[in-house]
Amino acid sequence: MNKERKIKGGVCAAEGFVAGATGCGIKTGRVTRDDLSVVYSEVPAVAAATFTTNKVKAAPVRISAEHIRPGRARAVVLNSGNANACTGPNGLADARAMASATAKLLRVKSSQVLVCSTGRIGVPMPMDAILKGISSLKLSRAGGTPAAKSIMTSDTFAKEIALEVTTHDGHFRIGGMAKGAGMIDPNMATMLCVATTDAILSGPALRTALRESVEDSFNRITIDGDMSTNDTVILLANGASRISPSPKIFRHALDIVTRALARLIVEDGEGVSRFVEVEVRRAASKADARRAAEAIANSTLVKCAWAGGDPNWGRILDAVGYCGVKMDEAKTDIFYDDLPVALGGVVSKTPVKKLRQIAAKKAFRVTVDLKVGKASHMVWTTDLTEEYVRLNLGE
Amino acid sequence: MNKERKIKGGVCAAEGFVAGATGCGIKTGRVTRDDLSVVYSEVPAVAAATFTTNKVKAAPVRISAEHIRPGRARAVVLNSGNANACTGPNGLADARAMASATAKLLRVKSSQVLVCSTGRIGVPMPMDAILKGISSLKLSRAGGTPAAKSIMTSDTFAKEIALEVTTHDGHFRIGGMAKGAGMIDPNMATMLCVATTDAILSGPALRTALRESVEDSFNRITIDGDMSTNDTVILLANGASRISPSPKIFRHALDIVTRALARLIVEDGEGVSRFVEVEVRRAASKADARRAAEAIANSTLVKCAWAGGDPNWGRILDAVGYCGVKMDEAKTDIFYDDLPVALGGVVSKTPVKKLRQIAAKKAFRVTVDLKVGKASHMVWTTDLTEEYVRLNLGE
Repeated sequence: MNKERKIKGGVCAAEGFVAGATGCGIKTGRVTRDDLSVVYSEVPAVAAATFTTNKVKAAPVRISAEHIRPGRARAVVLNSGNANACTGPNGLADARAMASATAKLLRVKSSQVLVCSTGRIGVPMPMDAILKGISSLKLSRAGGTPAAKSIMTSDTFAKEIALEVTTHDGHFRIGGMAKGAGMIDPNMATMLCVATTDAILSGPALRTALRESVEDSFNRITIDGDMSTNDTVILLANGASRISPSPKIFRHALDIVTRALARLIVEDGEGVSRFVEVEVRRAASKADARRAAEAIANSTLVKCAWAGGDPNWGRILDAVGYCGVKMDEAKTDIFYDDLPVALGGVVSKTPVKKLRQIAAKKAFRVTVDLKVGKASHMVWTTDLTEEYVRLNLGE
Repeated sequence: MNKERKIKGGVCAAEGFVAGATGCGIKTGRVTRDDLSVVYSEVPAVAAATFTTNKVKAAPVRISAEHIRPGRARAVVLNSGNANACTGPNGLADARAMASATAKLLRVKSSQVLVCSTGRIGVPMPMDAILKGISSLKLSRAGGTPAAKSIMTSDTFAKEIALEVTTHDGHFRIGGMAKGAGMIDPNMATMLCVATTDAILSGPALRTALRESVEDSFNRITIDGDMSTNDTVILLANGASRISPSPKIFRHALDIVTRALARLIVEDGEGVSRFVEVEVRRAASKADARRAAEAIANSTLVKCAWAGGDPNWGRILDAVGYCGVKMDEAKTDIFYDDLPVALGGVVSKTPVKKLRQIAAKKAFRVTVDLKVGKASHMVWTTDLTEEYVRLNLGE
């Protein structure tokens, strides 16, 4: 019987991981906060990662994808303030230089260092400041929270979590930090996550666990439907606990970490006033269920209605109608939490006042029952507020 | 040699067409403005129409699609204030009753009457008021503008245009009215267009011309990416001019009408402060060019940047990257009007001040040159403003 207990420490909660952060003034040239950090496993670790599927990939994504190919890594160097995206060959050289400088500091191979950047795009990295910053880093077990803070951009709070999982054989730990899909003046949203564990896992087991867990967490969140050039999720496992959990036990713990961080990202989305869980049920296929849920979650009109506390169902039905899935308006039921707002495609008898109370809450659930098949899919999303627009007006 | 001249009269500019409008208090029960109209050809006419491809179709769309099947129609009855959408079997009966009442007034067959509705969805039609309204309608050649006004919802001005086209054989006329993709409190956007011509056209020629012209006009505009349940474009041709223009001459005139109305719809979009023409060039296929242009035009982040007068290119490149088309960041050029903002995927040397001046204009052009093929596509779109969100907060 395994048991999870929340503990402190974030990415340094697991044995053998240390981290540190410092300020380099990456965005403005003035040092006002930490914007650079390193997470490091003191012993060799297997590693897995998932990256943005955007065809426009930032330089650090390209370098990290190259470095992680053999399935091992010792460290991750991260910065906020500059995404090192759309920076051409110079950007690639800069990302490599960040890995090399980190490798030198830690006395590991450059190919064992992964790189994550977030911030402005199309702007050269201030490499002098960054390299100086890397060389000055002090890593320790207390570095988890400083590292989590250093990657914040428009996030309003640092996002981290750690668990101790007790199994028959003893306990292992898993922790993680993330930064959210907030827009970075003047450019784009990025989701970064670094997770660490002291469990013993094979490379293939780690990759499978991460891929599936990301599918059920970060790949289910959508704020504005725009996918960044820098999105990266990294998981390092160094075996320092000497516990080798079953795939099921490990996956369960990893899911708690990824889902908690994914939820925090949505809740801290820019200008967000509602957290909405959208579930599409009884679709003709998994692909249809996903497409319909995402169409609802990304509909500008649906999101505006939620911002207004409007338990709108016409815009929801409209989105399901245009997204191309198999559906029959006359069969479709729509619920806010457990109350039907439309049954068989026409308005229900639920008092509007009760529905309005739900749509005015900070968090609620919208369920669409298509009744044409057996597949379902759930996504987490937000409303679209005037504040969101204001934050994203750019320069 | 044909020559087009703009004339007055809208849908009544062409010979043999009359129209009329009246107020029924459809939305609120109180008569404050005209909200019902009929456009009528005094002689038999061939007819073509295109309807929303949304699987959720409003009752009037279903009835009109049924009535137009033989390719002939004499009249269109239109109302604002209620979309008669998501209204189940009662809605279908109501749409049929509107056609029947109009047919009775005009002494034509019910199957020769098409129906268009726009406004709130999921709400029963106030049929007593509507039927009384229809029976009281007075039609005349002066009815074009009143009809155009009666279909407005959140439109800030009536949209109509008419042309007289001089050919070798004499002149024919073509006119049209439209209502825009503004949101209707508390529900959804609808685009309606009725065009009329006194040219002689066969049914197949009319259908081809309309289909192609809609493809190059209304199907190239996007404000929020949400497609309504009620979108309808109708074209009636009654031959009263006794002129039979070549397909090319007719198509040219029809394109002027549909493009002008499409542009007016975009310019009058809710909360719009920018009109943006987005062109994607040298894509691998027509489908890719369209997909990339629409991804840019529908990107929440790109639209927010435009609202702020930000000549953003990172968000544009990002949208092209995630939409799934063949592209190579290192080949991609992006222009605001004629000035490059990014060349080969990295920032250009164009002074930012000059680019900002363009992005702050009321209308500008964004061109993305992918350099991977030969296909291009152009769409018209808008920015996304706080005002848009405010207007769409719902109840």
